[in-house]
Amino acid sequence: MPRPECPPVAADIIAEIGDRIVLIERKNFPHGWAIPGGFVDFGETVEHAAIREAREEISLEVEIRVLLGMYSRPDRDPRGQTITIVYVARASGTPIAADDAKSVALFDPRHPPSPLAFDHAEILADYVRFLDTGEFPAPWRKDH
Amino acid sequence: MPRPECPPVAADIIAEIGDRIVLIERKNFPHGWAIPGGFVDFGETVEHAAIREAREEISLEVEIRVLLGMYSRPDRDPRGQTITIVYVARASGTPIAADDAKSVALFDPRHPPSPLAFDHAEILADYVRFLDTGEFPAPWRKDH
Repeated sequence: MPRPECPPVAADIIAEIGDRIVLIERKNFPHGWAIPGGFVDFGETVEHAAIREAREEISLEVEIRVLLGMYSRPDRDPRGQTITIVYVARASGTPIAADDAKSVALFDPRHPPSPLAFDHAEILADYVRFLDTGEFPAPWRKDH
Repeated sequence: MPRPECPPVAADIIAEIGDRIVLIERKNFPHGWAIPGGFVDFGETVEHAAIREAREEISLEVEIRVLLGMYSRPDRDPRGQTITIVYVARASGTPIAADDAKSVALFDPRHPPSPLAFDHAEILADYVRFLDTGEFPAPWRKDH
């Protein structure tokens, strides 16, 4: 039986170092600053993809602490629909840009750089709200 | 640029009617009882896929209330790796089996039928724990 054709899935990681987070400046289209992450391979869990991408793109070992949310609006990625699953993780050490990242820097999540690629401004706003209130983004708020 | 090849993504819905939930008896392999759901199409959000699948498979209109979790172990689906995103939703009316469902019935989630397909016993255990404690399944618990 052929497998269904579905939108590709990415794992993104909001990597916390102290009270700051790691963002990358993208080397490839779409340009701008972004939460590090990448596509899930066959044979790995989404959690493993998140840990692997943190290693490959920002050279950090991370420990996932929570699933923040899932973002799937068909127009959120200008390259074509991508579903992303966003984790919050603790990291230590010094991030180094690699792979899809041209540069990497630490930011106060309340004052992120501009422009942010994809819907990452919305995701970071959800993250700050989660930090402040403990509440997760409501699925229907993004959908209707 | 070609799109990446990723494991397909499904949306599953734990549809609550009062304090019971709707499960289907599967028509196709793998057989057994299951949480209703199906694959996400291009051009729809995962939330819309969940609402559409509830309509197609159990003939119910549902209102999503929360994202329970995401399950992606490579061996969780014997047909090939499938990532599933599980929502909890309120439903009303009388479910009617259609599409992939041979029959449909309401169950106390603490006493589900047997056998349950896929990793749905684990997902229902996570759901009962969420009902009892308000806590979401920890991503790393399923991964390590």
